[in-house]
Parts: sequence; structure tokens; C-alpha cells
Amino acid sequence: MMAFLWIPFFIALHFSTTVESSSCAVNGFPIVRNISEIPQDNYGRQGLSHITVAGSALHGFKEIEVWLQTFAPGARTPIHRHSCEEIFVVLKGSGTLYLASNSHKNYPGSPQEFPIFKNSTFFVPVNDAHQVWNTDEHEDLQVLVVISRPPVKV
Amino acid sequence: MMAFLWIPFFIALHFSTTVESSSCAVNGFPIVRNISEIPQDNYGRQGLSHITVAGSALHGFKEIEVWLQTFAPGARTPIHRHSCEEIFVVLKGSGTLYLASNSHKNYPGSPQEFPIFKNSTFFVPVNDAHQVWNTDEHEDLQVLVVISRPPVKV
Repeated sequence: MMAFLWIPFFIALHFSTTVESSSCAVNGFPIVRNISEIPQDNYGRQGLSHITVAGSALHGFKEIEVWLQTFAPGARTPIHRHSCEEIFVVLKGSGTLYLASNSHKNYPGSPQEFPIFKNSTFFVPVNDAHQVWNTDEHEDLQVLVVISRPPVKV
Repeated sequence: MMAFLWIPFFIALHFSTTVESSSCAVNGFPIVRNISEIPQDNYGRQGLSHITVAGSALHGFKEIEVWLQTFAPGARTPIHRHSCEEIFVVLKGSGTLYLASNSHKNYPGSPQEFPIFKNSTFFVPVNDAHQVWNTDEHEDLQVLVVISRPPVKV
């Protein structure tokens, strides 16, 4: 696994054991943030809470962006697609992913239905039409969403 | 927020309400997986559990990769750096991020020390030397790690 992160390589670098305790910003933006203090929005969708954990607008990230989204029972995304990679991690609750893998063809057919659940992960192939829906009647569905090449172009 | 995902655009697409219940694979890889069933490894580092939630090797992702890492009390990464963007979300426990933002200069100085904690997020600027350490004596530290342009080059 030559690509793996844990390869020690850094012995020659001066990395003193005396550190400065600090919660300073680097390049004007705090390195560590409490997610519960980050503003949320619902973008006009009832039952949705969206938090941009880290992204292009605030951090200037060009390659990755992370969201925390919470769906009340019955809440859902619109059916949509985008030309970036997308990975989800389900932190709480359960629901359904609707995925139309042939949606970029002329005759996309019907979407497939995938149950999603706490501690599951799922991904959406680039350009596939999809919808995430909290189909549980009682519990919130909470997901971490990772996209590439922000900001997303829907 | 023109870049936001929830913009409905998809009305013209045939997205039937009759769906097929399925847990099928797309392109040979299952869309949804139970994270607790994904193999873990410690790469020779005592007290570490590393799970590749989604990545380049298995999924063929070119732009993003997500890991779930758990550090027993006292466990830590080596000091390292890489030329990709990296975002962390702390799911459990607490610990310390050591970050040397000038480490790519000839005289990097001492690293800064940042407390990290459950429900916090932090990022590592590209090429900054860093180390994640579970400095708590009792609890595991668990983080989701997102990197760009996998596989990572350390």
C-alpha cells in the first residue's frame, strides 16, 4: 500500500516537541471549528438543515467540499445530478437513495431504490440522477456529504 | 447561492415513481455498503484502525477519498505532509492536531497545537506538516478524513 499516509518520511524536518498552544487562524481562517457553531440554512426546503463544514466559498478549497445535512422525516433533496464525484456517510437515521444510473442517456428508465442506514456509506456515480429521501417516519436522517471540485454545478 | 445542490432542474427527465427495490452493484461495485463490514487495517501502527470508506483503489475515484480512522488513547499518525487538500470531521473523542504551517520553508519553526474534539472539523493546508494524536487517556478518537486527488502522495 505504497500510497498510504502513514509512511514516516519526516525525520529530517525540524518538528520541535515544544509546541505553542493555540487556536489561531491560518490564512485568516480558523483551522479548527465547532460544527455546532457553523451557521445552517435550509435553502427553502422544509425539513432540511445544511451546514457547509468546509468548502470553496469560505476556505478557498478547490478540490473538496464537505457538508453536514439533516433531513426531518419525509424531507428529501430534489432529483438532481452533477458532474462531480460524491460520497455520503450516514451518521444517523435511515432513508432511501433513488439512483438512475442511465439518466444521462436518452431513455434513462426507472431509478433504483437503495436502503441507506446509520453507519452506511454510498456514492453517486458522476452525472447519475439521484435523490436522497428520509423515508423513515420518526427519526432524522443525518449525512456527511463529500463532493469534488467545488462549488458544485448542478 | 447559485452553486447550491438543491436547485430543481430535472423536471424534464423521466424519473418514474415506480422504482425497483435493489441493492445491486453499479459498475461492479455496490452503491451502498455497511461501514462496519469494510475491512480495516492498522498499517503496523499500534492503536490505529484505518478503513477506506470510499476511494481510488476500489471505486476508481479520481477526485476524492474518504477514510474512517480510530485512534486508541496515545495513538497518533506520524508527522507527515502531502500535496492534497484534507478535511477532518471528529466523530468521537478528543485529541490534538500539531500543525507546522511553515514546514515547507527552510526554517519551519515549531508546530502549533490545536485541541480537536467531538463534532469539530479541521483542515490541513496543502503541504503543511501535521500530526493527529489522541492525547486523551481514556477515550478513542475517531475521525472521518477526506482527501483530494487520491491516492495520497506523502
